Amino acid sequence: MRARPGRVGVPRMKKLTLVLFFALFAAAALHAGEGMWMPQQVPQLADELRKAGMQIDPARFADLTGDPMGAVISLGGCTASFVSPDGLAVTNHHCAEGSIQFNSSKEHDYLTNGFLAKTREEELRAAPTARIWVTTNIEDVTDRVTGKLSEKLSDVEREKEIERRQKALVDETEKQGGVNARVASFFEGSQYLRITQMEIRDVRLVYAPAQGIGVFGGETDNWMWPRHTGDFSFLRAYVGPDGKPAAYSPKNVPFHPAHWLKVATGDLDEGDFVIVAGYPGRTFRFTTEQEVRYARDFRYPMTIRYATDLNRILNDLGKDNRDIQIANASRIRGADNTLKNYTGTVQTLNRGGILEQRHKREAELAAFIASHPKYAGVMEKIHAIVDEQNATKERDMVLAWTLRSSPILGQAQRIWRNASEKTKADLERPSEYRDRNFEELLQGSTRAQKQIERSSDRAGLRYFLNEAMKLPANERITALDQLIGKDGVDAYLDKLYAGTQVDNADVRNAMYRETTAQLKARKDAMIDLAAALAPLTAQNEERSDRLGGAMSRVRPLYLQALREMTGGRLYPDANSTLRISFGRVEGYVPRDGVRYTPQTTLSGVVKKDTGEGEFNSPKALLTAANDKKTRGYIDPELGDVPVNFLSTLDTTGGNSGSPTLNAKGELVGLLFDGDYEALGSDFQFNNELTRSIHVDIRYALWVMDAIDGAQNLLKEMGVTPQY
Amino acid sequence: MRARPGRVGVPRMKKLTLVLFFALFAAAALHAGEGMWMPQQVPQLADELRKAGMQIDPARFADLTGDPMGAVISLGGCTASFVSPDGLAVTNHHCAEGSIQFNSSKEHDYLTNGFLAKTREEELRAAPTARIWVTTNIEDVTDRVTGKLSEKLSDVEREKEIERRQKALVDETEKQGGVNARVASFFEGSQYLRITQMEIRDVRLVYAPAQGIGVFGGETDNWMWPRHTGDFSFLRAYVGPDGKPAAYSPKNVPFHPAHWLKVATGDLDEGDFVIVAGYPGRTFRFTTEQEVRYARDFRYPMTIRYATDLNRILNDLGKDNRDIQIANASRIRGADNTLKNYTGTVQTLNRGGILEQRHKREAELAAFIASHPKYAGVMEKIHAIVDEQNATKERDMVLAWTLRSSPILGQAQRIWRNASEKTKADLERPSEYRDRNFEELLQGSTRAQKQIERSSDRAGLRYFLNEAMKLPANERITALDQLIGKDGVDAYLDKLYAGTQVDNADVRNAMYRETTAQLKARKDAMIDLAAALAPLTAQNEERSDRLGGAMSRVRPLYLQALREMTGGRLYPDANSTLRISFGRVEGYVPRDGVRYTPQTTLSGVVKKDTGEGEFNSPKALLTAANDKKTRGYIDPELGDVPVNFLSTLDTTGGNSGSPTLNAKGELVGLLFDGDYEALGSDFQFNNELTRSIHVDIRYALWVMDAIDGAQNLLKEMGVTPQY
Repeated sequence: MRARPGRVGVPRMKKLTLVLFFALFAAAALHAGEGMWMPQQVPQLADELRKAGMQIDPARFADLTGDPMGAVISLGGCTASFVSPDGLAVTNHHCAEGSIQFNSSKEHDYLTNGFLAKTREEELRAAPTARIWVTTNIEDVTDRVTGKLSEKLSDVEREKEIERRQKALVDETEKQGGVNARVASFFEGSQYLRITQMEIRDVRLVYAPAQGIGVFGGETDNWMWPRHTGDFSFLRAYVGPDGKPAAYSPKNVPFHPAHWLKVATGDLDEGDFVIVAGYPGRTFRFTTEQEVRYARDFRYPMTIRYATDLNRILNDLGKDNRDIQIANASRIRGADNTLKNYTGTVQTLNRGGILEQRHKREAELAAFIASHPKYAGVMEKIHAIVDEQNATKERDMVLAWTLRSSPILGQAQRIWRNASEKTKADLERPSEYRDRNFEELLQGSTRAQKQIERSSDRAGLRYFLNEAMKLPANERITALDQLIGKDGVDAYLDKLYAGTQVDNADVRNAMYRETTAQLKARKDAMIDLAAALAPLTAQNEERSDRLGGAMSRVRPLYLQALREMTGGRLYPDANSTLRISFGRVEGYVPRDGVRYTPQTTLSGVVKKDTGEGEFNSPKALLTAANDKKTRGYIDPELGDVPVNFLSTLDTTGGNSGSPTLNAKGELVGLLFDGDYEALGSDFQFNNELTRSIHVDIRYALWVMDAIDGAQNLLKEMGVTPQY
Repeated sequence: MRARPGRVGVPRMKKLTLVLFFALFAAAALHAGEGMWMPQQVPQLADELRKAGMQIDPARFADLTGDPMGAVISLGGCTASFVSPDGLAVTNHHCAEGSIQFNSSKEHDYLTNGFLAKTREEELRAAPTARIWVTTNIEDVTDRVTGKLSEKLSDVEREKEIERRQKALVDETEKQGGVNARVASFFEGSQYLRITQMEIRDVRLVYAPAQGIGVFGGETDNWMWPRHTGDFSFLRAYVGPDGKPAAYSPKNVPFHPAHWLKVATGDLDEGDFVIVAGYPGRTFRFTTEQEVRYARDFRYPMTIRYATDLNRILNDLGKDNRDIQIANASRIRGADNTLKNYTGTVQTLNRGGILEQRHKREAELAAFIASHPKYAGVMEKIHAIVDEQNATKERDMVLAWTLRSSPILGQAQRIWRNASEKTKADLERPSEYRDRNFEELLQGSTRAQKQIERSSDRAGLRYFLNEAMKLPANERITALDQLIGKDGVDAYLDKLYAGTQVDNADVRNAMYRETTAQLKARKDAMIDLAAALAPLTAQNEERSDRLGGAMSRVRPLYLQALREMTGGRLYPDANSTLRISFGRVEGYVPRDGVRYTPQTTLSGVVKKDTGEGEFNSPKALLTAANDKKTRGYIDPELGDVPVNFLSTLDTTGGNSGSPTLNAKGELVGLLFDGDYEALGSDFQFNNELTRSIHVDIRYALWVMDAIDGAQNLLKEMGVTPQY
């Protein structure tokens, strides 16, 4: 499933991977569903959109505060949309899962049984970190980011200056209060946009169907078609009595958005024109052949190998021990999700087509550059930068996994880094170590405690220390060589775990407040290990800055050359900013002899139901289906209640919960997943295989009306209940 | 896969199951593909067949020695067809597998690499038991079987008399020599037909593609769609220089059939009318609700349980022992095949529809009988007979599996039975114990030696003796109770295996020649066990005869009532006699959101290929596909070489290898399997889900031409090679 917040979702990319997968832009004709267009680009597509069947004025999509874009909101890692004048918002079930879980207890198991507030008073406070962001402004700040950069700056200085300018632009906006700002790079350094969002902090849970509807199919159906998941839920945005964003308070009142989506009353069939607006996370459509090859041959397979091995270790340890199982459950589940994603992606990359496309494009580009000397040497420079970044890829991979494999070492590393950063001015520190984020650092430590289990910690760390011992001579992690020495990994681990208290939450809390000198004085073996590894991390970050600076000089030229060569219309790679995709309801041929038809039905839910586990519908649903309590929600062509549908829309993680609109701009569904065959389409959209998966809004309405008695919400959305 | 000869294939049904699944006849409209019609019935379908698109005279199908039926032949458990005037016959690869294996050695691994005789001289003698049967006559002998049966006969006497008369009719025909006869019951005792077949005993292997084509997909794809198997091979029929069937001899000459099929030159597409002629084994379309319920609730699930448990035991034993693995391999594989079949069938039976259909039909019949007093009590009598047969079903199931679980006990049982039967007149014995079949009995003993492995034998027997110990009080196997006594199963097994030499092939050979007195004198514990179980077997057989006799009085009345009630056209249940089915090339919807399209392609083979195991195409095929060496074999709509196709034809085990004809009566393919969703359609044909799977003849021709250099055969079939 796409973008479970906090899991794979929108990758929280470290700068390292940002350099490796430098996000680029794509030139695309408006065929199939390819293209995640910036709102301001849509008016330029008007003619084609009208031809494709769009009935509303395409220019409206450029107006962020108008209809319909004013209704499209971000949950951070997910998308949602307003569907009533009183701030009612619809999104995926999996996007609200944290808030449902937060409110669930043994007595009130809302996750299992669902939740419905029949009145405003019954609405529940969402999880404390839940936010709704409404994009209110997009402004070009390119000049203020890369304008007048002295040519004398070194690569590192250049990178740091660009970062500094972006921070200043953010601070300038956020000073107003009640808004959130970021500066995002589009067309890689060719353009910087400052995006201003209103940050609504009082979010409430209004309605979620039972798990047997909202997560029907579970991990088995994750990324799969045919699909029968009612992946929807409802939240409400609240603001202070003054109408401004405010922290949760019983005195707060519902937010009144200027615009909200209208639910479609008509039919939706194969071939129909559809639109998705949302916040796609990250795509790599214009990485180079070299970069795709690195991903296919190293990054993905090594990640798969390490995640598989670590999961095996953790699973074996937990086999007969429930406590160990619980401690590792979320790590294992997260890794399983990554594994399914990466395995599918590697399959796609190996199936061929993508590398060939890159090779062809770069051969054409080479010919183009040969007759356009201003671009001479650009590709060579990019290759050299990527080569240097990858020179120690085995070492860097082992280092990253060593820190990740041991939650205790991960905490020690943060403690040490925090103490080290404290010596710098607040503005010079990475964001997570700035004073204003200290509380969040401590909360992270508290959350980590649940995952700290000594035997698992040691077993995982042991595997990666042994991997470190196998690194080639030119990629040694010398700090580990010195610590482990001749005694070997197991002897070192004995000393390490005997000599640390980092796994003690109270001790850890104290450590987060200490200086490096104080920490050193403790002679805690895990802190010492973190301190010993810190110089290599710093060295890698310095290299990353230097290479990032170097890349920022040449990458825009590569893009400019491509743009000039193709002469085509361009859409930028996804970067978690508001985008719009256009496509059709359409099936696909996953393999010879099989065609996936684009709509599923309530009968399909009943047939898939096994009465247990992941395929366990609520009895009320089965009864209603059996009794044909479906009047008013039947799709005439299917002769049944439609459940999910496929489209050719171009989406990715972060789009989860995005409203799907018909040609009239009415709400017909919610995007919640992509198909398994589309894994890898972050690298290249495949007309034949890339599909998005949506909940048909008619299924949501039927469940609300026939099963869950949510007539109050239907009325609020302007829908007349049937029951 | 259907009907691997000697595996599941055509069930060699014991009378027990014949009573339980009394084969009936079905009333069917000529819609979809339902109906396995007797040749003599086809002229009556003429109007509808012409409307459906048939372009040749339907009356031709009634002429067994004419065109095309004269070309359709039986291999015993499989079907084949003549495709040249020189006795060249085409069938499935899996139908010739025994002969390919028989000729394979380490030096000449024809199974793996395929085999092609470029000249007649290079053709290889098929396996010794290979036969080709050409049906030459079908004659109604009902009067001579059930005419003038005295009403005074007891049920047992009646049954024995019917059997005796059938034997006499067979002997009468076979006396001529060179022919094989059987008397088959159609419409259950309403009609008996004597079928005369010419038995060709010199069969030679002409051509088989490599395993990577002929068995591509292996067990994984068995019963599955989409499918990409080149399941075809070629044999040739040889006769003596006088033109009469003869044992193998280098002096023999190719048989010249009066008719052979012509290969289609045109296209084959979705929706096209197709015909299959062949020898379907057994269907149960008109079993009663009570009988279907017994199958669903007892026979299939218990068989699944016992086969699963026995396989687990044998697999565990062989885990670290290659010799044990080899000894049990074919038993395990056979059971796996049964398990896949039975599991699918139980799924279908549980999915609903079939029992409901039976229930409805019998309710209607009850109403009909209420107004037709001549049928009064028929259903009650049938129910009572079935109830009596099932009264000791747990005991009978355990007894059957006890004998089956231990190959040593199985041999002991045959040895004891042989000695017992020898005391009777030759004609009074069951066929397998008649003098003329003694050599076959000894050959069976030789074959069994490969499967005899003491530890597996004991482990399997132990499981079922323990099952016997758990039988309810009214179903005890008293012989086992007495032998096992208070010491328990393990102590008894110690004595049993210490005290037997039945596993010694030489000793066994001697035993097969001894009297019961001589056998008793040996005091061999396994023979003693067989002797102790013999009375219960005899008692069961006597009951079977008695109930069979009783059933033969009422079952025809049930059918007559059904016939009168429905007034519809009837086709009899399959019984391994020549039948014809009509249908279309058509896909299906296996589940919500998925449609199986009815044709697969060479590109699909290449995509499925993994380079190993079950999906390992010959390099030459992959190269030819890659080089687009496909001219002349491209399906215009698919733009590729067609490989397999689906049809709505009504077929079952025994139909394997059946020629598939187009509306003009030309050869367009070979039937080789049914779809997984069709398991259970032996009980009821399902218009939406029951499909047959065929090799497209164009794939066979392409492989022969582009890969295997079998241009000699193409020319013999009248096909112009392209390469």
